[in-house]
Amino acid sequence: MPEYRKDPVVKRWVIIATERAKRPHDFTVPKDKNKSGFCPFDYGNEHTTPPEVLAFRPEDTEPNTPGWWVRVVPNKFPAVDPELEIQKYGHGMYDAMTGFGYHEVIIETPDHNSTFALLDDKQATEVVWAYVKRFNAIAKDQRIKYILIFRNHGIMGGASLSHPHSQIIAIPSVPKRVLEELNGAKDYFDYKERCVFCDMISQETIENKRIVEENEAFIAFAPYASRFPFEVWIVPKVHSHNFGSIDENEISEFAKILRNILYRIYKVLDNPPYNFVIHTSPTYEEGKIYYHWHVEIMPRLTRVAGFEWGSGFYINPVPPEDAAKYLKEVEL
Amino acid sequence: MPEYRKDPVVKRWVIIATERAKRPHDFTVPKDKNKSGFCPFDYGNEHTTPPEVLAFRPEDTEPNTPGWWVRVVPNKFPAVDPELEIQKYGHGMYDAMTGFGYHEVIIETPDHNSTFALLDDKQATEVVWAYVKRFNAIAKDQRIKYILIFRNHGIMGGASLSHPHSQIIAIPSVPKRVLEELNGAKDYFDYKERCVFCDMISQETIENKRIVEENEAFIAFAPYASRFPFEVWIVPKVHSHNFGSIDENEISEFAKILRNILYRIYKVLDNPPYNFVIHTSPTYEEGKIYYHWHVEIMPRLTRVAGFEWGSGFYINPVPPEDAAKYLKEVEL
Repeated sequence: MPEYRKDPVVKRWVIIATERAKRPHDFTVPKDKNKSGFCPFDYGNEHTTPPEVLAFRPEDTEPNTPGWWVRVVPNKFPAVDPELEIQKYGHGMYDAMTGFGYHEVIIETPDHNSTFALLDDKQATEVVWAYVKRFNAIAKDQRIKYILIFRNHGIMGGASLSHPHSQIIAIPSVPKRVLEELNGAKDYFDYKERCVFCDMISQETIENKRIVEENEAFIAFAPYASRFPFEVWIVPKVHSHNFGSIDENEISEFAKILRNILYRIYKVLDNPPYNFVIHTSPTYEEGKIYYHWHVEIMPRLTRVAGFEWGSGFYINPVPPEDAAKYLKEVEL
Repeated sequence: MPEYRKDPVVKRWVIIATERAKRPHDFTVPKDKNKSGFCPFDYGNEHTTPPEVLAFRPEDTEPNTPGWWVRVVPNKFPAVDPELEIQKYGHGMYDAMTGFGYHEVIIETPDHNSTFALLDDKQATEVVWAYVKRFNAIAKDQRIKYILIFRNHGIMGGASLSHPHSQIIAIPSVPKRVLEELNGAKDYFDYKERCVFCDMISQETIENKRIVEENEAFIAFAPYASRFPFEVWIVPKVHSHNFGSIDENEISEFAKILRNILYRIYKVLDNPPYNFVIHTSPTYEEGKIYYHWHVEIMPRLTRVAGFEWGSGFYINPVPPEDAAKYLKEVEL
């Protein structure tokens, strides 16, 4: 049974994921799960995953059979479990909570060897539709406080299966990193009476040195204080705190710019590992005026090591102005 | 010239390290710096590093020649620069600061193929003496607010050279991660009138399920809310906020328990990559009653991926109680 545990000093939550429990030996033998050639996300292997919770498929096909073009299933080895009751308890001086939550996988295409960067407009848009539909479905569960959509690409990016997929983890508390953003954005709003992300868009537009691409609804830029080489953020141009309220036109604009940025990274850095996360407000009505949803794309080119872990500072050897220049030059 | 830049939302500082500036190509070709066989930290290559700032060597040897058993030099590709003036400046809405600071390398032994886990008592103690001497020397510079001593081991741990070494980075502000610990420890003290780390020692001792080793002056345990599999913290038993005030007896006890824990990890996990950091109070007199210096050792067995970056939550598949059991069983 997974368990949340809280660090008593910095109040950081950790999920002790017993479903994924490992012995020392599991870390010392090289993993090559995909070398066997079997992939649970391929056509014909639908029965090897938990039953689908959403699929875009022809009307004349049965659930959990081939034919789908996007498919969402619960994670077979979930970090958290939607069947658990939420219970908080103490353990001496320490705080813990049952590991309630949702952990789902969005299989982005039946094509095992593709990747988000290489999807066409239509397919990328369908993937984003799956994000939005699952986001809004899970948001109806009042016990859930935060829904995180993210993508790990490449072994170094933490992807244990190479078949193109994203993930959703939904949890009953607001995570620390998001709280920091909410608090920071609120401080800024209290001082300036403006949204800090809206101000960033304005600053980036005036300078035009870190913008990589923009379209009608979104802007993508290398942030001024990029933690990682070639980090890129995608931000909606019109203020909006909630990813779930994105409309049909925005969905297709968002899918395009996200795919384009991933393609630029793919070309400039030769298909590097990366992570992206969608940061949005908590599912309750927080942050409406001061928070602004966005995507943070983080190529995994440098190793986060002792200094970064110890300090929370990052050392980045690529000025974001240079990164933007290289990424902009890519022909789409 | 390196530059500190501040994220306008979460106020996280980043060092844009132009001394280490890289082009996209540098990330796409495999690095095998050490494959050439040349190591700047070996005997006879002392002239290839910046001149030593401290060395333990026989009295009849010249500086920057062989004979030393521990040697400290400025980093040849420093993230920060001690020659810069501190200047804060704005860049539109953004905040920046010149990249002032110290970045030094502690070469732990002349033996290229050794590692901290395999040092004998005497050599491990000498390394800790070098930590303490450099810590206290740098602390005299009033412009420095924080000194971080850390060690990266293995390529996956971020070590770009395999010759055994630790690093020191000293900066003119208190890093975010440390501030969080200071604030958390202060909150706890305000509520309980006790040090949270002292309480953890008491809790761990009562339970005795996560302790890996202890000696006269130190205790090592797998923390209750371990972020990483086989994470271990080493904490002085007597309350002390400042690493720099460690005494001669404590230095040798600390060296032994640190080496022993690293040896246990080396044996159980077959010489895995890891990072460790020494967390101490800022160099000014903060945290005296409520903060408690300690070491955090983090084996790098799982990949920190989208979920962790996006949330600040960690998923750990090894309960710390299990990790402690495996580590305890190792024969020293």
